[in-house]
Amino acid sequence: MTHATREKLIETGLAIMREKGFNHTGLQEILQQAGVPKGSFYHFFSSKEDFGEQVLEFYAQGAKQMAESILLDSDTLPLERLRRFFKSTMEGCRCDGFRGGCLIGNLSQELADQNPAFAKLLARKFAQQRELIRENLAQAQADGTLSVSWAAGDLADFLINSWQGAMLRMKVNKSCLPLDQFMDVTFNHLLT
Amino acid sequence: MTHATREKLIETGLAIMREKGFNHTGLQEILQQAGVPKGSFYHFFSSKEDFGEQVLEFYAQGAKQMAESILLDSDTLPLERLRRFFKSTMEGCRCDGFRGGCLIGNLSQELADQNPAFAKLLARKFAQQRELIRENLAQAQADGTLSVSWAAGDLADFLINSWQGAMLRMKVNKSCLPLDQFMDVTFNHLLT
Repeated sequence: MTHATREKLIETGLAIMREKGFNHTGLQEILQQAGVPKGSFYHFFSSKEDFGEQVLEFYAQGAKQMAESILLDSDTLPLERLRRFFKSTMEGCRCDGFRGGCLIGNLSQELADQNPAFAKLLARKFAQQRELIRENLAQAQADGTLSVSWAAGDLADFLINSWQGAMLRMKVNKSCLPLDQFMDVTFNHLLT
Repeated sequence: MTHATREKLIETGLAIMREKGFNHTGLQEILQQAGVPKGSFYHFFSSKEDFGEQVLEFYAQGAKQMAESILLDSDTLPLERLRRFFKSTMEGCRCDGFRGGCLIGNLSQELADQNPAFAKLLARKFAQQRELIRENLAQAQADGTLSVSWAAGDLADFLINSWQGAMLRMKVNKSCLPLDQFMDVTFNHLLT
């Protein structure tokens, strides 16, 4: 029961949960795909819910690193950083064949009404992402490249939420168009 | 086995599915809550999937009627119609305690990658809603109250998707703020 076994379980769980959601993902399916016996699973995770939370943490950590690598890049202007951030996420969606989408959004949709503890965790993940985006918008307002006078936090929320909706529609249409529309309206109209 | 029994099953299924999703909603739970025996269920529906599609049709029909009653009201200017439409949906969300959200969006998130037939049906429901909104935006462009030169269809998609994302965040935060932010950015900035 090595660290590698835990990682294998989490990565397998992530791949399945992104497409099937939390409730519909069976423990047996994860164990089989990961080639790990049930006993090992309970060595690392106390329950399926504990496992789900660990999968979410793993996913959110990766997403945070990706976001920070672009949104904290001081060699680039803040609005260009934001454009690159969404563009990069969009390319990820294209590579995934417009499947899966964002685990944070998916689990929010699925569990928000069912599991208050999970909902709290998801709200925190959104808040972290919001802070990174808000900071870039505030910088753009300060340096004059963004003229809209909204509170940067409200605008950050609007962008995050609109992006989540665009990914939802992308999944159902299996098309990049919703993401293209988001980029167009956001960067050629809203953030000017 | 009356028409009322079918209605009872659909309404009960809708209430549960809006919060728990399709996969996590058990047939037994619906039958118990509706007080209907299993045999009656299979008199009306060939399978759980058939039932899910009928629930979606019922919900979409209600949503369409509500949308048309506002968005086809020729006594009101098109942008004001749009504002009223989203405002009215927002009040519905408030009455629901920011739970449930939109069944079309919820099922899209849950089933888009799992069930291509269902995804097609959901895409059609989005397309119907888009057409109503597109028509209002095109009218506003024609009468000069909307000056942005985007294709009205792209803008309609952007609004629908952003609204879906706002409802997703509303559910996870149990707060009206994401909807308020949508209204503010959309009607005080985007559609001017």
